[in-house]
Amino acid sequence: MQTYIDQVMTQANDAFQVYQFATGKEKKDFLYEIASEIEALGEVLLKTASEESNLPISRFIGESERTCRVFRMFGDLIEEGSWVEAVIDRHQENQSSESSDLRKMLVALGPIIVFGASNFPLAYSTPGGDTASALAAGCPVVVKGHQLHPKTSKLIARAMEKAIQKCNMPPHVFQLVEGDSFEIGKLLTQHPHTSGVGFTGSLVGGRAIYDYAQKRATPIPVFAEMGSVNPVILLENALKVSGTAWAKAFADSINMGVGQFCTRPGIQLAVKSEALDYYIAELSKFMAEKKNYNMLSEGIHQNYILKLKSALETKGIQTIFYRTGTESLSAELAIATTTGDIFLANPHLHEEVFGPFTLIIQCDNLEQLTQIWKQLKGQLSTTIIGTHEDLTTHKTMVDIARNIAGRIVFNATPTGVEVGHATVHGGPYPASTDSRFTSVGMDAIKRWARPVCFQNCPDELLPEALKADNPLNILRKVNGVYERI
Amino acid sequence: MQTYIDQVMTQANDAFQVYQFATGKEKKDFLYEIASEIEALGEVLLKTASEESNLPISRFIGESERTCRVFRMFGDLIEEGSWVEAVIDRHQENQSSESSDLRKMLVALGPIIVFGASNFPLAYSTPGGDTASALAAGCPVVVKGHQLHPKTSKLIARAMEKAIQKCNMPPHVFQLVEGDSFEIGKLLTQHPHTSGVGFTGSLVGGRAIYDYAQKRATPIPVFAEMGSVNPVILLENALKVSGTAWAKAFADSINMGVGQFCTRPGIQLAVKSEALDYYIAELSKFMAEKKNYNMLSEGIHQNYILKLKSALETKGIQTIFYRTGTESLSAELAIATTTGDIFLANPHLHEEVFGPFTLIIQCDNLEQLTQIWKQLKGQLSTTIIGTHEDLTTHKTMVDIARNIAGRIVFNATPTGVEVGHATVHGGPYPASTDSRFTSVGMDAIKRWARPVCFQNCPDELLPEALKADNPLNILRKVNGVYERI
Repeated sequence: MQTYIDQVMTQANDAFQVYQFATGKEKKDFLYEIASEIEALGEVLLKTASEESNLPISRFIGESERTCRVFRMFGDLIEEGSWVEAVIDRHQENQSSESSDLRKMLVALGPIIVFGASNFPLAYSTPGGDTASALAAGCPVVVKGHQLHPKTSKLIARAMEKAIQKCNMPPHVFQLVEGDSFEIGKLLTQHPHTSGVGFTGSLVGGRAIYDYAQKRATPIPVFAEMGSVNPVILLENALKVSGTAWAKAFADSINMGVGQFCTRPGIQLAVKSEALDYYIAELSKFMAEKKNYNMLSEGIHQNYILKLKSALETKGIQTIFYRTGTESLSAELAIATTTGDIFLANPHLHEEVFGPFTLIIQCDNLEQLTQIWKQLKGQLSTTIIGTHEDLTTHKTMVDIARNIAGRIVFNATPTGVEVGHATVHGGPYPASTDSRFTSVGMDAIKRWARPVCFQNCPDELLPEALKADNPLNILRKVNGVYERI
Repeated sequence: MQTYIDQVMTQANDAFQVYQFATGKEKKDFLYEIASEIEALGEVLLKTASEESNLPISRFIGESERTCRVFRMFGDLIEEGSWVEAVIDRHQENQSSESSDLRKMLVALGPIIVFGASNFPLAYSTPGGDTASALAAGCPVVVKGHQLHPKTSKLIARAMEKAIQKCNMPPHVFQLVEGDSFEIGKLLTQHPHTSGVGFTGSLVGGRAIYDYAQKRATPIPVFAEMGSVNPVILLENALKVSGTAWAKAFADSINMGVGQFCTRPGIQLAVKSEALDYYIAELSKFMAEKKNYNMLSEGIHQNYILKLKSALETKGIQTIFYRTGTESLSAELAIATTTGDIFLANPHLHEEVFGPFTLIIQCDNLEQLTQIWKQLKGQLSTTIIGTHEDLTTHKTMVDIARNIAGRIVFNATPTGVEVGHATVHGGPYPASTDSRFTSVGMDAIKRWARPVCFQNCPDELLPEALKADNPLNILRKVNGVYERI
C-alpha cells in the first residue's frame, strides 16, 4: 500500500512541476473540457450514481448540471485572472532610498488530496468543488474515492483522463485512489508530497483526517467540512402570519435528499406560543405527506436510527411525529420537541442527527433562546425566520448569528448552497476545521494557493500577472490603490 | 496559573463581544493613538529596549519609528475599509427562482495570542505586526511578554492602556501576560476562548506552540514565523562584475542586528570559479572590519556557539574567517565554505545558525547548485544575485525559487523586510506553519478574519460594508465584477 501511495504522490508531484505554470487560459480550457466530458457520460452517469446512492435519477440531473457549471465557473474565474490577488508596491522616489519594488501574487500550493462525501457523488466527491477549485489554482488532485459510489467515481476518472489527453495536460494531474481502508486516507494525508487536504463528510471522519495531518513533520492546511445542526430561529410574528407556509417549507427542507444534507435544519428554536403550537402541528401534517425514502447506505441508516433513538428516548423529549418505512434502508421520519431547560441539560441533543429529523426547542423566553443559540457549537448556517417587525425589533440577533455560523439565512430554508462569488460554506469548528475559508463558491480556490513576493525582479522575469503593463488586464492593488491599468 | 489565564481569556472574550463591532474609523483612531502613546514614551523606551537587548539606542530609533508607522498603516487600511473583501451576488431575475441575494465580508476571529520575538522588542513583540494586525481586524490581543525584555513590554502595555482609555475601548482589548514558563504559553494556546495564535521566534518554540494547538478540542489557526537560512544564489557574471560590492553588501547584511535577523543570509550558493574565490576573499576582508557586538542573551549566544561549532567542525568545512570577541556575550564572526557534495551529505548544515555566520557552498556546476537549492526546506526568502545576462540566461531559476520561499529577492540582500501591501513574510514550512499567510505587511490582517455570508438579509440589518448603496465607498465584487459604487 505504501509503495502504491508513494507512486501516486510522486506522479502528482511530477505533474505539479508542470501544471503549476499552466496559464489561466490553458487551465480554463481544461476545466471546460472536464465539464464537457462529464456531460458526455450522459445517462450512464445518472443511472450509476442513482443506483449507488439510492437517490432518484432526477436528483442527478440537477447535481450533474451543477457540477459541470462549477468547473466552468472556476474556468471563467482563472481566465479572468484577478483571483491571484496581485499587489504591487512600486519603488517610490520620495521614499527612503531602501524602498524596493515589491510584487506579490498567489501561486499554487502543490498536490491536494480530496476526500469526497457520500451524499453528493457528483457535486462534493470525485468531481465537485474541491477538485475543481484545486485544479483551478494549479494544483494536481488525488481523490480518495468514496466506498459508497466506486462506479460513479470510475466513470468520472475516465472523463478526467479524456480531458487530460485532449488538453495535453500532465497525465497525473488528476488521480483516483480506490479502496475503503482508513490506512489509505492516513497514508495520503501524511505523504510528504501532499500539500493540502479537502474533506467533506462526518465530524468523526473529518477529525480523523485532521488528526492524521497534525502528526506530519510538515504541517499542511486541512479544510474539512463536517456538517452542522443548522439552528433555525423562528420569531413569533412570522409564525403567526405564515405558520403554515413555513411548516411546508421546512418539511421540504428536512426531507431534501432524504435528510442527508449537511445544511439540513436539525434544530429549530422558538419562544413558546400558540403560534408555535400551530406551526408544530402543521409541520407534522406536512411531514406525514412525505415518503420514507431509502437512505444512502446501511451504515448511514443504522447510524441515523441510533442517534434518533437516543434523542427521542431522552427524558423530556416529546415525539410529535414518527413513521417508519417498509424497506430495510427506509429513513424514519421524525419530529420531536422539548423545553429549553431539557435541551440545555442534555448536550448530546446539540449533536447532528444525520437524517430527516428535526428537534423543536420551546424556549421560555427570548433570553433562553439566545442563551441556547450561543451555546451551540460552530455551524455552517443559522437561519432567522421573522417578519420585518420581528427582525427590526431583534436587530442584535444578527450580531449573535455571525459568531455562530459561516452563513446567516433570512426567511429561507438553509438547504441548498448556491455556488457564487459570495458563497460561504464553512464556519467555526466543528462546521469546518478552518473558518477562514469556504469549500463552496469561487473563494474555495483560496485554500490551495499561497502568496509569493518578487522583490526588484526584472520585468521580463515576472509572471504575467505582475508585469508592468498588466498584460492580463487584471485588477491589481498598486501602491495601496485598486486599479486595472 | 490556570485561574489567572482563565481570567485573562474571559476578559479578552468579553472585550471581543464589544470590540468586534467597532467601526473602521474607531479602530483607526485607536491604532493611531497607540502609535502616539508609544512615541510619547520617548527616550525611556529607547533606553530600556537597548539595555534589555544589548542593541544600540540608534537601532531603536528606527525600530520604534517603524512600529508606530505599522500601527498607522493598519489604521489607514481599516479606515479605507476594502480589506473586508465584500462580495455581493445580487438576486438576478434571469436566474432560477431559487437564486438568492448573497453578501459576504470578513469579520474578526476572536481573541488572539501573540508570542513576541526576542530580536525585535518593538517591531515583532509586545507591539508590532501581530498585535497591530489583530487589533485592526477587530480581535482583542493577549501578548505573552518575552522574558528577555520585560521592562520594554511593560512600558508598551502602559502606552496601550492609555490609548484604550483615551479612545474609550473595552479595557481588556489588550493584555500583557508576563512570566517565562512554558506552561503559560501552553495554557494560553489551549484556552477555549483563544481563536488564533501569532508567533515569531525559533523553530523549536514555534513548533511547540503549534503542537500545543493541535491538542485542542477546537482547532485554531496558528501562524508561526520561525526563521530560515535564506539561501542566496550568486551567479557568475555578477561576481565577476561586482564581486567587491556584493561582498560588502553581504558583510553588512550578515552582521545586521548582530546576525540576529530571521532574514539573515545563512547560506550562499555559487558555482566554483575564480570570481567566487575573489568574492570569498573580499567578504572575509569586509567581515574583518566588523565588530564583535554582544548578542541578545546568554542563551542565544550559547546556542549560536554550539551550532556554529557543529558546522565548523564538520569534516570538509573550511573556515575562511573567524574572530571571537572580548566580552562574554560577544558574537563570534565567521565565514566558512564547503563543496556541494559535503553540503548534500550533511543535512545538519542545512539548518539555521542564528548569528553572524554564513556558509558558502562551492558547487561543481549549476545542476548541483539547483539540486541543493531544491533540497533546502521552506524559506522566508531566497535571493538571486545576477547581471541582466545571468538572469535572462537562467530564467527557470525564478520558477524554482517560487516553490522554495515566500519572497524572492533580486540583486539585493534579504535582510530588512519592508512593510507594504505586497510584503510576504512567511513561506513553506519551516519558514512558517502556514505559507498561505504573511506576518508582515498589510495582508497580515487576513490571518485574523473569517468570511460570513448574509443570505437575503434586509438592507437595514446588513453591516455597512454590504449595504446596497455602499456607504463606506469600498471596493466590492458585485456579481463577479469589481466596483466601487
